[in-house]
Amino acid sequence: MAVGVTSGSVGVVSTRTARLFDTSEPLALAGGSQLSPVDVAFETYGTLNADRSNAVFVCHALTGDAHAAGLHEGASRPGWWDNLIGPGKPLDTDRFFVVCANLLGGCRGTTGPSSTNPRTGRAYGLEFPLLTVGDLVEVHRALLRHLGITRLLAAIGGSLGGMQVLHWGLTRPDEVANAIVIAASSRLTAQNIAFSAVARRAIMADPNFAGGDYAANDTSPDVGLAIARMMAHITYVSEDALTEKFGREPHPTRTKPGFGIDFAIESYLDHQGQVFLERFDALSYLYLSRVMDYFDPFAEPDALAAVRANPVNWLVTSFDTDWRFGTAHSRRIVRRLERAGLPVTFREISSTAGHDSFLMPVPTYHATLRAYLDRALAEVSR
Amino acid sequence: MAVGVTSGSVGVVSTRTARLFDTSEPLALAGGSQLSPVDVAFETYGTLNADRSNAVFVCHALTGDAHAAGLHEGASRPGWWDNLIGPGKPLDTDRFFVVCANLLGGCRGTTGPSSTNPRTGRAYGLEFPLLTVGDLVEVHRALLRHLGITRLLAAIGGSLGGMQVLHWGLTRPDEVANAIVIAASSRLTAQNIAFSAVARRAIMADPNFAGGDYAANDTSPDVGLAIARMMAHITYVSEDALTEKFGREPHPTRTKPGFGIDFAIESYLDHQGQVFLERFDALSYLYLSRVMDYFDPFAEPDALAAVRANPVNWLVTSFDTDWRFGTAHSRRIVRRLERAGLPVTFREISSTAGHDSFLMPVPTYHATLRAYLDRALAEVSR
Repeated sequence: MAVGVTSGSVGVVSTRTARLFDTSEPLALAGGSQLSPVDVAFETYGTLNADRSNAVFVCHALTGDAHAAGLHEGASRPGWWDNLIGPGKPLDTDRFFVVCANLLGGCRGTTGPSSTNPRTGRAYGLEFPLLTVGDLVEVHRALLRHLGITRLLAAIGGSLGGMQVLHWGLTRPDEVANAIVIAASSRLTAQNIAFSAVARRAIMADPNFAGGDYAANDTSPDVGLAIARMMAHITYVSEDALTEKFGREPHPTRTKPGFGIDFAIESYLDHQGQVFLERFDALSYLYLSRVMDYFDPFAEPDALAAVRANPVNWLVTSFDTDWRFGTAHSRRIVRRLERAGLPVTFREISSTAGHDSFLMPVPTYHATLRAYLDRALAEVSR
Repeated sequence: MAVGVTSGSVGVVSTRTARLFDTSEPLALAGGSQLSPVDVAFETYGTLNADRSNAVFVCHALTGDAHAAGLHEGASRPGWWDNLIGPGKPLDTDRFFVVCANLLGGCRGTTGPSSTNPRTGRAYGLEFPLLTVGDLVEVHRALLRHLGITRLLAAIGGSLGGMQVLHWGLTRPDEVANAIVIAASSRLTAQNIAFSAVARRAIMADPNFAGGDYAANDTSPDVGLAIARMMAHITYVSEDALTEKFGREPHPTRTKPGFGIDFAIESYLDHQGQVFLERFDALSYLYLSRVMDYFDPFAEPDALAAVRANPVNWLVTSFDTDWRFGTAHSRRIVRRLERAGLPVTFREISSTAGHDSFLMPVPTYHATLRAYLDRALAEVSR
């Protein structure tokens, strides 16, 4: 396919599941406990080459899943990063073998807090162990072993995805030739934690949350989870983008002022909350948002020792209108890596879309990823 | 008292209440309906001079009240703007006669949605009429008539308070010699409305809200109101201020990661939510936040006709770290006023405290208000 063509699709795909840990070989968590079984939902796109040197692992964000590209049978909406992954696209599946897996703690096929606890036969609920970004990466590593891959050409991810990439590159530099960290953070600010704290409060205060045992009641804290999503969504988009898209437009059904959906922005937010309920679980929201709060890899003792001994190439990108994990977060990561003498490319990309830019086909962004990945592939092919 | 001394207190004060509208003379609302009775809680500080030319009306913000300065009998916490109002302070009660009244729709002594509906003998709930900023100002005007004041030396207010001042100056320029609009907006953005929409959702989705009839059940939607306040509070303070104050400090009681109060910022937010419940009412939050969403005075036909014919002096100030109603909001107001040929002084004040700066004793801010008010008084005294 000609360079620059970006219309390719990986076509119809399906999610597979693998049991990566079981009672005989449980997952050892950073917090000290063990977890089994651990099933992982994943998808792959493209073909692993003969020397297994073209694998790219896509780490998803807080509310993503394994379905990054292509179409599920009968579906009309492609995977969440379909604009990036496919024949001729920056993550060119004619040349790269792309892997994406649902996160540990998630709710889209991988073991998480709403999975069945084998000890009780019921959903784990709040008995599920607390997780760290390192735990999420451990499961990715097990999946790679399962797929027969020992070293990635690249790990790539945005937001919480970028945090996994950062951890992976720092702690297992032998497994990651290139680490692409997009719109991420190496330590959340008080404001970041505050927004997540209010979201969790909304979920846990919903009477249907039932102390986390809502599955036993065949209910779910939909009201709280929708509020959490609505609030979080405001932080994912830039103020200018909301102004441009909605401004102060009245909602078409508005007749007179009231406390319903009077403005177009209110209808949009309501929609964001409602569609989220169809694909996400309240307990996963609690667990994975808390993972982010605690992430602070450069505070670890000898955080840079491993990667100093075995340098990884880094690409760090931010978006100028991102006010969740803005450029200051990325610069902090860059400074730490640079001080360790590591090869780091940094790009602040101009985009109107705020934090969600990492999901969008922003031309400069895609061109940056394409150039970086092309060079990475050329280097291993030499 | 010497110029520059700011330690004075107005001393012990009490809130008075006046019935300003009743069945024989109801309040005519902008929406077309009538409301009676309307009782208004207010406080005054200082002494009205002989020619009644030294009155300053303080308009409070969304969750404020009439108790702006001094101490209530037996209380240890002074009024909300005590750093600004008192002998020798910028709003110098040795020279100015200061009036502050709880807003229509409020819950601190003035008639609002949780007041008794005379038609039913129960709290109005959602049968209370929707309000506009103009309605709030109509009640302030009635209070001034009650106090025998026909023209203000100045009206002053921050946030929703500034919106009242803007409306008052534009529509009744004969009554306001000087209009001081602080950290306010002439039209909320989609993001501004979005945050309030989620706050309202949290309140109305609380099972205790009971369609607004919670008073009949002797309950209140405390969980939803606390969530609303926690979220709003994040928007009132700057990210840097939260970082400075809390950073990623663990809460002292944290033993291991969980979903309670693990970080100091979470404890602070929780506290903000809880103390708010002691002084505010969920229905007032709905009504007064909605007032803000709809405020758009320059969209009114001939918005500037009255003030063009009878110029008011304007002082518009913003704070550089305010991300709720930042400098862009104030500049929009300034541009509109300037285009109408009105005398406008604009100051963007540097402060770390975000939107809440208008409540703080920021030296440049207080010096600006002091100089402006001194000149205003000198001009009427000539």
